[in-house]
Amino acid sequence: MSVLTIEQPDAVPAGEEPPDTGERHRLTAVTGLAALSLDAMASVAYGPEAIVLVLAAAGAHGLGFTLPVTLAIAALLAVLVASYRQVIAAFPDGGGSYAVAKAHLGARTSLVAAASLVLDYVLNVAVAVTAGVAALTSAFPSLYGDRLWLCLVVLALITGVNLRGIVESAKAFIVPTVVFVGSIFVLIIVGLFRSHPVSTATAAGHASVVAGNASSVGALLLLKAFASGCAALTGVEAIANAVPSFRVPRVRRAQRAEIALGAVLGLMLIGLSVLIGRFHLQPVAGVTVLAQLADAALGHNGAFYVIQFATMILLALSANTSFGGLPVLLKLLARDNYAPHVFALKADRQVHRHGVLALAVVSAALLVFSGGDTNTLVPMFAIGVFVGFTIAQVGMVRHWRLEKGAGWRGKALLNGFGGILTGVAAVVVTASKFEEGAWLIVIALPLLVAAFIAVHRAYGRIGERLGLGRIPEVPHRERSLVVVPVSTLSRLTSEALTAATSLGDEVRAVTVCYPDPEDRAQLHALERAWADWDPGVPLVRLSCARRSLGRPIAAYVREVAATEPGTRVTVLIPETEPERLWQRLLQNQRGAVVAHAVRRETDAAICRLRFRL
Amino acid sequence: MSVLTIEQPDAVPAGEEPPDTGERHRLTAVTGLAALSLDAMASVAYGPEAIVLVLAAAGAHGLGFTLPVTLAIAALLAVLVASYRQVIAAFPDGGGSYAVAKAHLGARTSLVAAASLVLDYVLNVAVAVTAGVAALTSAFPSLYGDRLWLCLVVLALITGVNLRGIVESAKAFIVPTVVFVGSIFVLIIVGLFRSHPVSTATAAGHASVVAGNASSVGALLLLKAFASGCAALTGVEAIANAVPSFRVPRVRRAQRAEIALGAVLGLMLIGLSVLIGRFHLQPVAGVTVLAQLADAALGHNGAFYVIQFATMILLALSANTSFGGLPVLLKLLARDNYAPHVFALKADRQVHRHGVLALAVVSAALLVFSGGDTNTLVPMFAIGVFVGFTIAQVGMVRHWRLEKGAGWRGKALLNGFGGILTGVAAVVVTASKFEEGAWLIVIALPLLVAAFIAVHRAYGRIGERLGLGRIPEVPHRERSLVVVPVSTLSRLTSEALTAATSLGDEVRAVTVCYPDPEDRAQLHALERAWADWDPGVPLVRLSCARRSLGRPIAAYVREVAATEPGTRVTVLIPETEPERLWQRLLQNQRGAVVAHAVRRETDAAICRLRFRL
Repeated sequence: MSVLTIEQPDAVPAGEEPPDTGERHRLTAVTGLAALSLDAMASVAYGPEAIVLVLAAAGAHGLGFTLPVTLAIAALLAVLVASYRQVIAAFPDGGGSYAVAKAHLGARTSLVAAASLVLDYVLNVAVAVTAGVAALTSAFPSLYGDRLWLCLVVLALITGVNLRGIVESAKAFIVPTVVFVGSIFVLIIVGLFRSHPVSTATAAGHASVVAGNASSVGALLLLKAFASGCAALTGVEAIANAVPSFRVPRVRRAQRAEIALGAVLGLMLIGLSVLIGRFHLQPVAGVTVLAQLADAALGHNGAFYVIQFATMILLALSANTSFGGLPVLLKLLARDNYAPHVFALKADRQVHRHGVLALAVVSAALLVFSGGDTNTLVPMFAIGVFVGFTIAQVGMVRHWRLEKGAGWRGKALLNGFGGILTGVAAVVVTASKFEEGAWLIVIALPLLVAAFIAVHRAYGRIGERLGLGRIPEVPHRERSLVVVPVSTLSRLTSEALTAATSLGDEVRAVTVCYPDPEDRAQLHALERAWADWDPGVPLVRLSCARRSLGRPIAAYVREVAATEPGTRVTVLIPETEPERLWQRLLQNQRGAVVAHAVRRETDAAICRLRFRL
Repeated sequence: MSVLTIEQPDAVPAGEEPPDTGERHRLTAVTGLAALSLDAMASVAYGPEAIVLVLAAAGAHGLGFTLPVTLAIAALLAVLVASYRQVIAAFPDGGGSYAVAKAHLGARTSLVAAASLVLDYVLNVAVAVTAGVAALTSAFPSLYGDRLWLCLVVLALITGVNLRGIVESAKAFIVPTVVFVGSIFVLIIVGLFRSHPVSTATAAGHASVVAGNASSVGALLLLKAFASGCAALTGVEAIANAVPSFRVPRVRRAQRAEIALGAVLGLMLIGLSVLIGRFHLQPVAGVTVLAQLADAALGHNGAFYVIQFATMILLALSANTSFGGLPVLLKLLARDNYAPHVFALKADRQVHRHGVLALAVVSAALLVFSGGDTNTLVPMFAIGVFVGFTIAQVGMVRHWRLEKGAGWRGKALLNGFGGILTGVAAVVVTASKFEEGAWLIVIALPLLVAAFIAVHRAYGRIGERLGLGRIPEVPHRERSLVVVPVSTLSRLTSEALTAATSLGDEVRAVTVCYPDPEDRAQLHALERAWADWDPGVPLVRLSCARRSLGRPIAAYVREVAATEPGTRVTVLIPETEPERLWQRLLQNQRGAVVAHAVRRETDAAICRLRFRL
């Protein structure tokens, strides 16, 4: 046995280098914050709105509870950030909840974490796209009626960009993030100096959607508002997932970025909710709360449009991060035999095309389901996020109990507290939003886990049958019979017989004939021409009463296999390959019909020979 | 050289016989009339309506011209029937305008006839489906808003039935035709005994669509009404196309059926237009003229619903006849190399699946284009019909001049007169309805002819390259090298190498490797296992810096072909064939990627070996 090596220098296009692994290109705390906080920052575009929409059911009195609910969410944020600081220290290789669950809670639980991550990636696309379009339609209300179409166009754009393959440069995200966060803070600070809204242009002319006039604000309503608002916490885990992207000392830098993320996000949420109370905002159909705030604080001028535009760009980029994340997750699952292997196959453009397409299709379905409305999607989004949070925290408790390092009890307590909080939040969101879409997640999550397990079992069985991991039997030579379907005599037939005689110990040409007089005449012409030609290959006539092409050939192959054991039958199908694409339409598809029948009904190998015209 | 014959008795399923060619099953004048007049009879459902709709532009005064215009159309019908009586005598083998043009006007003109036939078949489906649904929505006005969806559902049903293959029994059409014609005559006779409408229930509650109040009725308007109403003449040629289906004496029986068709159709048209005048009908949105007449003559009772239902069934069957006719026409064109050969390929279900699907897709597009409205489609329909009529008549004039039999001058004069009338009608319809949709036909007809010619030329070139009609060179044996792409070691690899060593003089396994450390480790494991296994086949390592699977293998095949001339390279791709259909999702598609690259970039034959699990 010999092993040859052939280097193909031409396979590396000029100007393209293998991926750089140098420290120089890695993230500092500041660039890491900007690059990885995108999703979290973007969620202030829909988080406060989700609170306002719930509280509005209790009228103006209810809306007065916006700040307390936001403070509760900020408190949960603080606990989460502290917990994830510990996750970063414990899992410096990144991976987030999936890694924690895999290490400490077993394969099944890690699959639940993976399923919730998959759902989150998908919902992140749908939520970010609808929220981005809502920012746009708030600025240009005439587009409001077409929001579903706008959403689908934005999704198609993002999908197209990702299918062509983009440079994965986290740094490209820094500028939009800084612009967005900067303008939100300007909005908050300017707003705090005003006692009355400077403009209500966006809210004017729209019917208020405040439906309820109940003055009693029950605990259930507050819980619902809290649960809805928790959508603002999505993205907090991103830094913990990506610790290896930081420059050394990685853990320290990542922890600093995580804390900064919590501080900035918390300040934005609290600041916005203070302004909501100050300007007595009410939800208005077709205008986002953030647009109303921008209008009230800065006026209906250039600054308003800058904020809407920055919001839209940031949300589109936030949707884009799912396209980076989900295909990689699917690849990891495929490598572990939990997802179809096709997701691990990188196409020639260096993208996981199948993952990108799957994400686009499911997101499009969600967009249509929601009609392009963010607030239909937000409750579903929060569930998956909290399931992931909870699994990570519970896993961390086990981690600290196993490790028993210095101060492990305090750390375990913190993670346990975080886990209980997020677990309760998950239950509250699911229960309170069940009929409004959460049922979809309650169904989809277990189905996804079941699908992972079914795929794993199927691969196990396939691997068993293929004898993977065992040395297979040594190949041996068998007698080879090549069958060539023929209908006319041409250079193609000659080429096919040359190929067949080169491949086979014996070659037989077969032709199918029907009782029709016209067909009979054709057959006789072929047989006469064959006799004149005398290619040294017998022409077998397969009579068939019904007009069927593939079946008689498949039946003949089966018969040969049964009567001549030890013979390996190959069906060689000659086909023309036209010069131009449109001429493909001119091919008669006889080859495809024969191949289909032989493939379905026999074990013979199918060899397709293309004759270039 | 030997010629073997293998009879396959199992290929004929029990109870099924070869097509019967006995006289007993052929048509008499009466059954032929019923079976072949379907399309013509059905056209009374939209013909009179087309006249009324045009004349309504001139108000009640204009509508008074309904009877004169109908009489003119009946006169044209008489000329056409007399002309087609002569076509039947001259072309007893059937084929209609295409056959006449092919015999007497050259290939180009016959292609114009064929193109107009193709358009007519397509438009017949669209017109019949929309008119059938209009009959339904006239009876159940609440369905009116969903008429486009109803049209598409009816189209899908007809397509489905035709894809599964129906028994081509013309006799099945007799009962609905008799019921329809019978109820129309009952309607006319009962209506003639009434001086006032017995009911106007269907017309009530709908806004009248009489738009114009002009009292002057110009010649142009009358011409337009005439042109629109000519849609009622579609289907008159059907009997001439199908002379061979009649019992001997074929010509005599077919001629009798043709005259009876003209008489029945003419009487129905005149009778209906007399009633339109008597009841002072006006076009009403959402209610067909026929429904209004049934209502006025018979009352809004059971009889009304019977007529609407019979109309709908007849129109659906009329649409169905296109599904019988167009695929056969496409097959004839394919045999003459004017249409892609795939249309001549009968699938195993004995249907021309491709023709049926092509017809369904184009018809669906037309339905969407028209929004499910018959009167948008009717003008387009008439053009193609008249082009066909004119070509047939002109061809007949040449026929008589060449033959110069007894009384040839009179016959030529009759056909010439018919040709002039239908030619003028074609011009009038096209000019007067150009902006309302006729432009589509003016564009589509020449495009179709150009497509036929382009296809014919392309087949000519392909046949030239393939050396069709010449005896090709005798096949010879060449050295055979089989290349087997490999990524892991399993029973599949062993099977593949057994197949490859049986087929090739030399076999090489190839594996693609990437600079990634993980990939490197996998490669070394494979190479170690290969050395342990020692299958007697070298393992060639193809290094590739970019993550590409197909290209390195295609490049290797190209290189071998360049450096080892006289060697025939076959790429053998082993694949698993899963037990269940859903497990196809689990296949990694590596085989497909390699096959695609090798097919596109090399001339090597591709052999796919399926290993059944």
